[in-house]
Amino acid sequence: MIETRTLTLAEIEDLSFRALVAAGTSEANARPLAVATAATEADGVASHGLAYIPIYCEHVQCGKVDGAAIPTVEKPTPGVVNVDAATGFAHAAIDAGFDALIPAARAQGIAVLAIRNSYNCGVLGYHTWRLAQEGLVGLGFTNAPASIAPSGGAKPVVGTNPFSIAVPGTDGQPALLIDQSASTIAKSEVMKHAREGKAIPVGWALDADGNPTTDPNVGLKGSMAPSGGYKGVGVAILTEVMAAALTGATLGVHASPFSGTAGGPPKTGQMFIAIDPKATAGDAFATGIAGLVQVIRDQSGAHLPGDGRRSKRLAAQSNGVAVNVATLEKIEAILT
Amino acid sequence: MIETRTLTLAEIEDLSFRALVAAGTSEANARPLAVATAATEADGVASHGLAYIPIYCEHVQCGKVDGAAIPTVEKPTPGVVNVDAATGFAHAAIDAGFDALIPAARAQGIAVLAIRNSYNCGVLGYHTWRLAQEGLVGLGFTNAPASIAPSGGAKPVVGTNPFSIAVPGTDGQPALLIDQSASTIAKSEVMKHAREGKAIPVGWALDADGNPTTDPNVGLKGSMAPSGGYKGVGVAILTEVMAAALTGATLGVHASPFSGTAGGPPKTGQMFIAIDPKATAGDAFATGIAGLVQVIRDQSGAHLPGDGRRSKRLAAQSNGVAVNVATLEKIEAILT
Repeated sequence: MIETRTLTLAEIEDLSFRALVAAGTSEANARPLAVATAATEADGVASHGLAYIPIYCEHVQCGKVDGAAIPTVEKPTPGVVNVDAATGFAHAAIDAGFDALIPAARAQGIAVLAIRNSYNCGVLGYHTWRLAQEGLVGLGFTNAPASIAPSGGAKPVVGTNPFSIAVPGTDGQPALLIDQSASTIAKSEVMKHAREGKAIPVGWALDADGNPTTDPNVGLKGSMAPSGGYKGVGVAILTEVMAAALTGATLGVHASPFSGTAGGPPKTGQMFIAIDPKATAGDAFATGIAGLVQVIRDQSGAHLPGDGRRSKRLAAQSNGVAVNVATLEKIEAILT
Repeated sequence: MIETRTLTLAEIEDLSFRALVAAGTSEANARPLAVATAATEADGVASHGLAYIPIYCEHVQCGKVDGAAIPTVEKPTPGVVNVDAATGFAHAAIDAGFDALIPAARAQGIAVLAIRNSYNCGVLGYHTWRLAQEGLVGLGFTNAPASIAPSGGAKPVVGTNPFSIAVPGTDGQPALLIDQSASTIAKSEVMKHAREGKAIPVGWALDADGNPTTDPNVGLKGSMAPSGGYKGVGVAILTEVMAAALTGATLGVHASPFSGTAGGPPKTGQMFIAIDPKATAGDAFATGIAGLVQVIRDQSGAHLPGDGRRSKRLAAQSNGVAVNVATLEKIEAILT
C-alpha cells in the first residue's frame, strides 16, 4: 500500500515551482515546468509528474540542464520558428517557440517549431494539447538517448522517440489525443522492474545480441523492443528525423542519458507542427472529427485515444490528485 | 513457377499509358499514373505495379474513378495547397498539387498539400520520394476504407492507413525512405491467401468479434490486426486525421471499397507535408542524416528503411523488370 496525500493542482504547481527555484532554476524557467507538472499529475501520468521534480533539481545542480538558460528564437522563413534551448529546460524553449509558432500557423496555415540543444520535454501530449487549445492540430516529436536497435541489428541507434497528435475539440478538451512511444513499453517500466527485482514479460526488451529476455537488467544493457517489430523502428526513425536531424539537435546515438548525473546536457530536440484546419478543410474538418470520434464511441468497450487522460483531468480539477507521500518528502527535503 | 517476361521501364510506362487511355482515361491523367507504375515496378513493389493496371481500367469503365477528371487547385494561405481531385486518379491531383507545394515549401520553409475526393494513390513512398528529389523532407499520409477496429472494439473504423517519410540524399536517391501501413500485414496479402485457399498466420487478422483467426475469409469479414496492438491503431487514427479530416475527404468508415466495382468513387484523401531542412537546421541536417544512416549501416545485418527499394531501383534502370506474363496478357487484352 502506497501512502498518498491529496493536493490541489495549484498546490502541485506551487510546490514544483518552489523546489525548482530552490535548486537554482530561474523563475522564468521554473514556472512553465511547474505548470506542466501540475497538468501531468492532473492527467494521471504520475511517472512524469512530481516524481520528476527531484530529478530536475538534481540535473540543475549537476549541470545536466542549465536552470538559468535563456532560449533564443529565430524566424528564418514565414513558416519556420527555430529555438536554441541553450541546454535549458525544454518547457521554457517550447513556450518561447509557441509564442511565434501559433500566429505563424494562423497566418500561413501551417508552421513548424524546431528546438535544438534541449532536454527531456516530459509528456509530449501536454505540449500538443496546448496547440489544440488554440484551435490548431498539433503534431509533436521528441528524440531521446538511443535504446532501440535497427531491424536486423542489436545495438541501439534511436530512442523510444514518441510522437503525439492533439486535435481541437468543441468543449475545451481535445477531441482526441495520441501520445505514444515507438517501443512496446516505456523504458521507465523496465527500470522500475529492475529496481524492484522483478522479471519483465517477453517482448518488452532484448539482450545485447537482440534476443528476448525476461531480465530487466539484461534488457537495459541491450535494447528496448520496438512496438510491432520493424514498424516500431520505422516510427522511431521518423521521429529521429523530425526531432533531431531536422532541428539540428543531437542524435539519440550521441546523446548523454536523461537519467543519472553523468555526461552533461543531452542536447536532444523537439519538433512541433501546427496546422490550421480551417485553411485545409474549412467546416469539413469539425464534421470529419466528430464522425470519427462518434464511430469509435458508438462501439461498446472501444477506446478513444485521450479519453483516459480527459476523464482524470476533469476529475482532478475538482478533487485534486492523490500524490505519493515518499515523493512529497523528497521534494520537501529540497526546500529545507 | 510463374512465367515472366523482362520489360524496360520505358516499355512498362508505355504499356500502362496505352491501356489506361484505351479504357477511357485522358492522356493528362494516364501519364502520371503510367510513370508511377514504371517506378513502382522498378522498386520491386509488383503488387502495386502493372497488376493494378487492369483494375484501374475497370474502375474507369465502371465509374469508380473519373478518367477525364480535372483536379482543381486552391491556395487559401501561403503555406496551404488544397486540391479537389474531382473523383479522378490521385496521381494527377498530386502532380497538380506538387507544382504549388514545392515552391511554397521553399518560400515558407514548410507547406502542406491537402487532397480530397481522391482515389487509391498506389505506393505512398513514390510520392514522398519525389519531394525528397527536390531537396525537401516529404511526409505523406493516405486513408483507405475502414479495416482496423479501435482498441477494445471489433468493428473497423479506420483503414490500414500508411504514412511515409522520404529524406533527401546526396546521390540522387533518398537517404532513407519509410513507407509503412498501420496493420501487421497488407490487406492484399490476406486477400491473396483467401484466393489461394491458404490459412493465414495468427496475428494478421481478427474475426468479427475481435478474436484471432487463421481463416483469411473470416479475417476479411472481421478486421485487420493493427501492428503492435493499440499503437498501430494510434498510427491509423493519426493518418485518418491527416489524410481525411484535415483534407475534407471521406472518412474510411464511409468510403466505398478500393477493390471491386461497387459503391462509386471512394473519395478518400491524401496529405503531404514538405519541409525545407535548410530553413530548420541549415547544414546540421545533412550531418545528422549522414550520422544516422552510418550508424545503421555500420551494424552487420541491420536494415536501413528504403535500402531494399533503392537496390532494386538501381538494378531495374539497367536490367529492366521481370513481369508476370499473366498480368501482361490481361493488359494486352485491354489494348485489342
